[in-house]
Amino acid sequence: VGELDLIRQIRGRLGGPGRGTVVGLGDDAAVFEPPKGLELFTCDAFVEGVHFRRDFSSLQEIGAKCMVANVSDVAAMGGFPTRATVALCIPEAASDREVDELYDGMIEVAARYSFEIVGGDVVSSREGLVISIALLGAAEAGRIVTRSGAVVGDAVLATGSFGASEAGLASLLKGLPRSAAVDAARERHTSPRARLKEAQAIIEVATPHAMIDVSDGLSTDVWHVAEESGVGIRLERDAVPIAPAAQEIGHQIGRDPLELALASGEEFELVAAIPPSELSRTVDHVEAVAGTEVTRIGEVVEAERGCTLVMGDGTEMPLERRGYEHLSGDER
Amino acid sequence: VGELDLIRQIRGRLGGPGRGTVVGLGDDAAVFEPPKGLELFTCDAFVEGVHFRRDFSSLQEIGAKCMVANVSDVAAMGGFPTRATVALCIPEAASDREVDELYDGMIEVAARYSFEIVGGDVVSSREGLVISIALLGAAEAGRIVTRSGAVVGDAVLATGSFGASEAGLASLLKGLPRSAAVDAARERHTSPRARLKEAQAIIEVATPHAMIDVSDGLSTDVWHVAEESGVGIRLERDAVPIAPAAQEIGHQIGRDPLELALASGEEFELVAAIPPSELSRTVDHVEAVAGTEVTRIGEVVEAERGCTLVMGDGTEMPLERRGYEHLSGDER
Repeated sequence: VGELDLIRQIRGRLGGPGRGTVVGLGDDAAVFEPPKGLELFTCDAFVEGVHFRRDFSSLQEIGAKCMVANVSDVAAMGGFPTRATVALCIPEAASDREVDELYDGMIEVAARYSFEIVGGDVVSSREGLVISIALLGAAEAGRIVTRSGAVVGDAVLATGSFGASEAGLASLLKGLPRSAAVDAARERHTSPRARLKEAQAIIEVATPHAMIDVSDGLSTDVWHVAEESGVGIRLERDAVPIAPAAQEIGHQIGRDPLELALASGEEFELVAAIPPSELSRTVDHVEAVAGTEVTRIGEVVEAERGCTLVMGDGTEMPLERRGYEHLSGDER
Repeated sequence: VGELDLIRQIRGRLGGPGRGTVVGLGDDAAVFEPPKGLELFTCDAFVEGVHFRRDFSSLQEIGAKCMVANVSDVAAMGGFPTRATVALCIPEAASDREVDELYDGMIEVAARYSFEIVGGDVVSSREGLVISIALLGAAEAGRIVTRSGAVVGDAVLATGSFGASEAGLASLLKGLPRSAAVDAARERHTSPRARLKEAQAIIEVATPHAMIDVSDGLSTDVWHVAEESGVGIRLERDAVPIAPAAQEIGHQIGRDPLELALASGEEFELVAAIPPSELSRTVDHVEAVAGTEVTRIGEVVEAERGCTLVMGDGTEMPLERRGYEHLSGDER
């Protein structure tokens, strides 16, 4: 397939320019009206054999997941996605249909979160697929939430539950037989969602001091917030919501479900630090608006205390930065 | 090198957020004030062994050239660059210093064209380097120039001269001994410039109906403008400005210098279609502002006539879409 033909094919699939877009895919650059408030900009690259495997996920799932990871970043800053560009590096042997399938997934995510794919590049790779996505977003000035504003005394909350993505990957790597838990975990691993509605709901009723999406693993991302904010964080061991599928698969494969929950990357759950007085209305509002459970998992403490895991009996141990190199099985 | 350490290292090199930037590199997304007029957005991916070779270019040159290619796209639309994100896929064996050198080149280009690198991702590649850059730009609403507006009767102009980039690549592939021509051509191939000043100068005194930067080769990019505009273009054979280095190296390696000039990719010269009455003041103004020669190379004709090369005696032959797959030496 020639590169120009591919660009034409993609352009045909995307349809005409959306609202506010003056020039869409196919020219030297896309042109559009900028947002009114503040603008957000993020990028991520995904490498076959490092971030995804084609025997574990369909191309549609791979395209969708790459896009979701970027949407999750914008959501965690308090923004909503507006426009994306996609640079595909594809092996020479790739077919039209494979590119179509990747775009199927990306277009589906763009529709789900109401943004537009406005630009693309398609080049040859030497080995395997590489997908690079850059995503723009918008937010009202007062709604931006960074990783770096957590203050001592804040409650630390989390959306949803943890561990299923890693459990799904482990079940794929080990070839576990299908079961309700395995199916749920694999679905979570191959087709994650971004917590866009939940992030907006949190900001509507609370003034989060810091927020992050869990892409590297809960323990690692808690450390990120702590370090960027110059604080410590106490995570309560018994409060961490562990996904039922992670519980079951953890027992099946001999891994502690809590350890799975702390290490599991690409969860795309939100972790936020908010004033404790705002906790109960935040829990209620996110549940009402998005149907998603929000749990208080800990609190922000002085930097000197570092990040710790607090046991049921009150003893504390250092919170290890867990997080697995995807697909290799080796700990970082 | 851990990915987080690399991000920190890069953040240290970039310095604090620039004007209008609220959150720079290191959070889930960059946050900044959007431009006032229209916004531009483009992306490109560059693959080791496909777009560049480390035995032909330093990492600094590679980083700079990838960035220049994006700046050139924004320039050709009538915009100027504002902010970039960089996704690096690097082999596991890559060192801090190598990443530093890549960023040296990218930072140099950002300084030269006055924009800011606000975001980055660093991931492992399976083989070789892959550099994906997404670039934002800004333009006043009336200044946007697409590929698709050329009308019959327009003069077709080009900045600078053609053929040196391909001649430089050929001299590297063939291992030609150093000479003034070889050095000039290699410099052009490894360290191209974007015609940002020239594009702005053209728009200041003319109303270009279409503009493109020559990245795929003059003949291919002339076809792009013709097809997107629904017109034909007559290129005058004797008017195409051939770089002196391409003349000399062409003779040396037995390739027609004109063919080199038509096929040479990554020239980043501008080709524009403007009303003929605006030609002479455009030539004068670009020369005065940027010191760059502008040449009338042809004219826009009816679509039925296609794209042709007009000989000195007035005979026409079809303009072949030339353009070489980089580094392979095979014609497309």
